[in-house]
Amino acid sequence: MSVRVLTIKEDLLGANDEIAKTNQELMDKHQILLINIMSSPGAGKTSLIMQTINRFKEKIRIAVIEGDIASTIDADKISEQDIPVIQINTAGGCHLDANMVKNGLDNLALEQIDLVLVENVGNLVCPAEFALGAHKTVMLLSVPEGDDKPYKYPLMFTEADVVLVNKIDVLPYFDFNVDTFSKAVSGLNPSTRIFPVSTKTGEGLEAWFSWLEDAIK
Amino acid sequence: MSVRVLTIKEDLLGANDEIAKTNQELMDKHQILLINIMSSPGAGKTSLIMQTINRFKEKIRIAVIEGDIASTIDADKISEQDIPVIQINTAGGCHLDANMVKNGLDNLALEQIDLVLVENVGNLVCPAEFALGAHKTVMLLSVPEGDDKPYKYPLMFTEADVVLVNKIDVLPYFDFNVDTFSKAVSGLNPSTRIFPVSTKTGEGLEAWFSWLEDAIK
Repeated sequence: MSVRVLTIKEDLLGANDEIAKTNQELMDKHQILLINIMSSPGAGKTSLIMQTINRFKEKIRIAVIEGDIASTIDADKISEQDIPVIQINTAGGCHLDANMVKNGLDNLALEQIDLVLVENVGNLVCPAEFALGAHKTVMLLSVPEGDDKPYKYPLMFTEADVVLVNKIDVLPYFDFNVDTFSKAVSGLNPSTRIFPVSTKTGEGLEAWFSWLEDAIK
Repeated sequence: MSVRVLTIKEDLLGANDEIAKTNQELMDKHQILLINIMSSPGAGKTSLIMQTINRFKEKIRIAVIEGDIASTIDADKISEQDIPVIQINTAGGCHLDANMVKNGLDNLALEQIDLVLVENVGNLVCPAEFALGAHKTVMLLSVPEGDDKPYKYPLMFTEADVVLVNKIDVLPYFDFNVDTFSKAVSGLNPSTRIFPVSTKTGEGLEAWFSWLEDAIK
């Protein structure tokens, strides 16, 4: 039986870009690198941030802005690392926007910070549509989500400077082909870097750390 | 270090309810059960629909409305089962709305259908905010996503008539406690039914099939 396709357009873009630009100017003034980290719920954003803090906290002054719809579970975890954390609750909203991040930045002592990691709301769709003023955009796609996701949710893959394929420790238990996935991502976004990692075991994270060190320079 | 909480409200609700009501009236007129299936990307919606079609297609006349941001991958899979499939591409939109479903229903031969399964866009946030006119709301949360998700993404759990805990075949490889998860869901939504399943191996699906048979009656 043939498939009929109905295309329905929806305007989701706001007038968000001007504030995003101001955010980036503020970061540049303070020589801070701002990174926007996006993924579906449970793909490993908080775990990546924890690993990154553990690796760099003696060398680089890190702050975190935690975007969540509800709860402070992730911010509580990160605050145990004794670094500044701002929790932003979107009260139902499915993504951070530039103004939310501006509010977060206004509550940080910027002169004492080198790197701000923004953990966006867990969602493979909306966050990619709203610029925050970040210098770099990082996304995670975890193995259990499936290797067909670049075709079904293309925007975030198109915008990412780095794609981390997370949870490679469970590759034996899922039908996920890293080559197929990487080719699909490169087709959408030839310049993106793709790093297979496990934020649980630490496997592959050296490539991410090395990329981040270069980005901070 | 203490966590500061900034709460930023955002109005995401549209004037969608009137069309949803009309959709449900249309379904009632034709004695069709309309089910809205929601989850994050890759949690197993299509796989659940395929298993459900395989089980019931000799007894019940099923149609599927496939919501996707892009591609017809899922609709193509389902159309191989020789049942009517309508693909709705939201062109970037992060959820289906009642009007999109109305357009889908207008393209189905309703007098020849008993059950319409709507596969919403993969997203744990936005789809729960838009009524489609469904009689029942079903969500999947897969084991790799983590057992803390009811606290972080409460709305969908609050609205679901059924919560399927999918991918229980990989429970040994993840820190996921089904009891902890079920208590959290029941706390948000005491009347919801929770079925641990694997849409890959078929484990646990009898409870879902039995619930669906009762709902169709």
